[in-house]
Amino acid sequence: MILIKNLSYLIDKDLKVYENCDVLIKKEEDGIKKIMGRNLIEKENLNQKDLKIIDGKNKCAMPGLVNTHTHIPMTLLRGIADDMRLEEWLSEKIWPNEAKLTKEDVYYGSLLGCLEMLRFGVTIFNDMYFFAEKVGEATKEIGLRGVISFPIIDVGTPECKDKDKLIRMAEGFIKKYMGDELIKPAIAPHAPYTCSEETYKECKKIADDYGTLLHTHLSETRYEVVEMENNLGLRPVEYLEKIDILDNNVIAAHCVWITKEEVKKLAKHKTKVSHCPVSNMKLASGGVMPLIEMLNDGVEVTIGTDGVASNNNLDMLEEIKVCSILHKAHRWDATVGDIDTVLKMAFNSEVLGIENNDIILIDLTAPHLRPIHNIKSNIVYSANGNDVDTVITNGEVLMENKRFECIDNKFLEKLYEKIDKIKEKFSC
Amino acid sequence: MILIKNLSYLIDKDLKVYENCDVLIKKEEDGIKKIMGRNLIEKENLNQKDLKIIDGKNKCAMPGLVNTHTHIPMTLLRGIADDMRLEEWLSEKIWPNEAKLTKEDVYYGSLLGCLEMLRFGVTIFNDMYFFAEKVGEATKEIGLRGVISFPIIDVGTPECKDKDKLIRMAEGFIKKYMGDELIKPAIAPHAPYTCSEETYKECKKIADDYGTLLHTHLSETRYEVVEMENNLGLRPVEYLEKIDILDNNVIAAHCVWITKEEVKKLAKHKTKVSHCPVSNMKLASGGVMPLIEMLNDGVEVTIGTDGVASNNNLDMLEEIKVCSILHKAHRWDATVGDIDTVLKMAFNSEVLGIENNDIILIDLTAPHLRPIHNIKSNIVYSANGNDVDTVITNGEVLMENKRFECIDNKFLEKLYEKIDKIKEKFSC
Repeated sequence: MILIKNLSYLIDKDLKVYENCDVLIKKEEDGIKKIMGRNLIEKENLNQKDLKIIDGKNKCAMPGLVNTHTHIPMTLLRGIADDMRLEEWLSEKIWPNEAKLTKEDVYYGSLLGCLEMLRFGVTIFNDMYFFAEKVGEATKEIGLRGVISFPIIDVGTPECKDKDKLIRMAEGFIKKYMGDELIKPAIAPHAPYTCSEETYKECKKIADDYGTLLHTHLSETRYEVVEMENNLGLRPVEYLEKIDILDNNVIAAHCVWITKEEVKKLAKHKTKVSHCPVSNMKLASGGVMPLIEMLNDGVEVTIGTDGVASNNNLDMLEEIKVCSILHKAHRWDATVGDIDTVLKMAFNSEVLGIENNDIILIDLTAPHLRPIHNIKSNIVYSANGNDVDTVITNGEVLMENKRFECIDNKFLEKLYEKIDKIKEKFSC
Repeated sequence: MILIKNLSYLIDKDLKVYENCDVLIKKEEDGIKKIMGRNLIEKENLNQKDLKIIDGKNKCAMPGLVNTHTHIPMTLLRGIADDMRLEEWLSEKIWPNEAKLTKEDVYYGSLLGCLEMLRFGVTIFNDMYFFAEKVGEATKEIGLRGVISFPIIDVGTPECKDKDKLIRMAEGFIKKYMGDELIKPAIAPHAPYTCSEETYKECKKIADDYGTLLHTHLSETRYEVVEMENNLGLRPVEYLEKIDILDNNVIAAHCVWITKEEVKKLAKHKTKVSHCPVSNMKLASGGVMPLIEMLNDGVEVTIGTDGVASNNNLDMLEEIKVCSILHKAHRWDATVGDIDTVLKMAFNSEVLGIENNDIILIDLTAPHLRPIHNIKSNIVYSANGNDVDTVITNGEVLMENKRFECIDNKFLEKLYEKIDKIKEKFSC
């Protein structure tokens, strides 16, 4: 049992703020149980010998952060190419280098990404990358929780060039990890411009058969929307609706180039949207994702960092600040993208079918987090990922006082050696 | 003398990158001298007893960051009001609370702001706040360097309600601090909508007489531009040109609502511009500052955080990332606001008439800064202020291994007590 004592602040999932309280975290057979209150040792008659006690003074506890669209192993490509036009960036830098990645490389890139997320208090995520099994392996090794989506592209991925075989592999992957404690398998037809109608339907059938999520990219750039309109007379959301893909088990990343009509369709089908403001801005996808329209129409929107190659980090605290100020700037309205709106999006793991019982502590001792007029404001607008102090996920302390507890001293050093070795094969 | 040994990376002011080198920092009568090279102990025949040695392994050295527009004591108002329309934010929250600030409050708020900047590697800044003398006092106490601008408003400031007296006080302030080692005094007519033509001219005369900077707000919001156009038939830059204010000793903050013609005027007069992207976005000033037009026309643009109440921190590494991605997004062009452009702006202290001889070290051991394909990319797009490890300004080590060396253990605790006491007087 873990007891966090004398917490200066606690923000719960409903964004209520409590001061000066304790939290007890118990791992029981049917899941994680949390008790909140004052003087819990006395009140709950706890034996200190059974307790891992964490001092909560000058700290703010809150739920783990949730990154709902990412490609974790792309940590390997951090900074390999920036400030480039999307087409050249993809065709000259990202794809040729990704083609060189082995199963083992993806494993080490995933470890690096998991440790980065852990450092930044991201405890739950939704990934999409080839060699998905290796992403899952790294996730379990570090102890985070995530939806690991197996990606499908008609021309194949570096994992396998045969699409039919890929789909069978995806099914095998899903079967294998169904019911796993930490990871949830899912299937990910990459995007309407890389996957045929048949592919989407096959993926959807698997998602339905196994009750898993279907994770896809949707309307990220204007180019893909115009191309589809020219070829099919339909916009991407209309298309996915027409071929019966959209429902509440679909999570669509980006959705930047979406009309108000398409927003209504996403709302009607209860399709989940992952908004990736930093990546969209950095890649100059153009336009601004219609977040406010989506929220007004009841679309469930959450936030993703996208891959590191277009971000270039996995810092969800940075992401929610940028999300907030982007939409304020875009609409000339400082009241939108407010503190509670972005915090709620960042805590929402229900869209992934995972309960957010994780707790992270933010260290409030640095000058940039003082004074505290409004703790939630300081978290959203003043803090960054490095202010995360302690991470407790699935009832385990994975990081304490900014030190990783889930790996030994030499682990990081050896990992960096591996990563530097992998780096050599890339052509910058 | 300070020797930084075995630096993994060094980025110089011209943005050149060196690997595996030493830097020697000597404070001499005529200023700071730096020597760069390998094995400097042997090469320069140094006696280790005379040296403060800092280990540069897994660190990147670069010039101190320069914040060219801020209101440091506004740290006191961090998070006091967010997500509000500008007019209400100012009239209901900022101004009534600022009116309660005493000289002593401004001093403590400045100490907090200086420590925040130090923590984030900001070694040189340009401030504008009432009780400027107290801002200067705190700056000197911490050991940073800055232009401390004495603000003038026609209706007075909380320091003094009489404008003529304020201008005489400003002159006295400038006289007192002329030639100071750490701070440079300047005069700051607040903005064309709060200062008359006469006020601007009086301020300009003082700036010219003493050879100091004139620091002002300019065209931050559409409202002030439209109002001036209605009243005078001129836009703010045209107006300041007409009344003979613009020259190369003027630094104008914001300049969001500027036409291409006005950009040309700023370039012609060599007037310096401080761009504050996060504040403009958060306050929903509307539009986007024409950074690319300014750079193309040769305007010298640098970057400011603005006050903490509208940011809500003084993190220049965050600011340059947001600057970059804002302009990429705005222009649908990923090539603008590139790494070198924003870094150059962030290192530029020459606009303040201060030489940037400071050195900061970035700690490269965290997962989000690995691998290193391009160290400058990792600094601009992946790092945040908390990654700053060590700060050497004016030849003194003010922070080492993320610990403040310029204050003792109890200082921060006592400061936070003072700040919390001041906080009580605000009405949230």
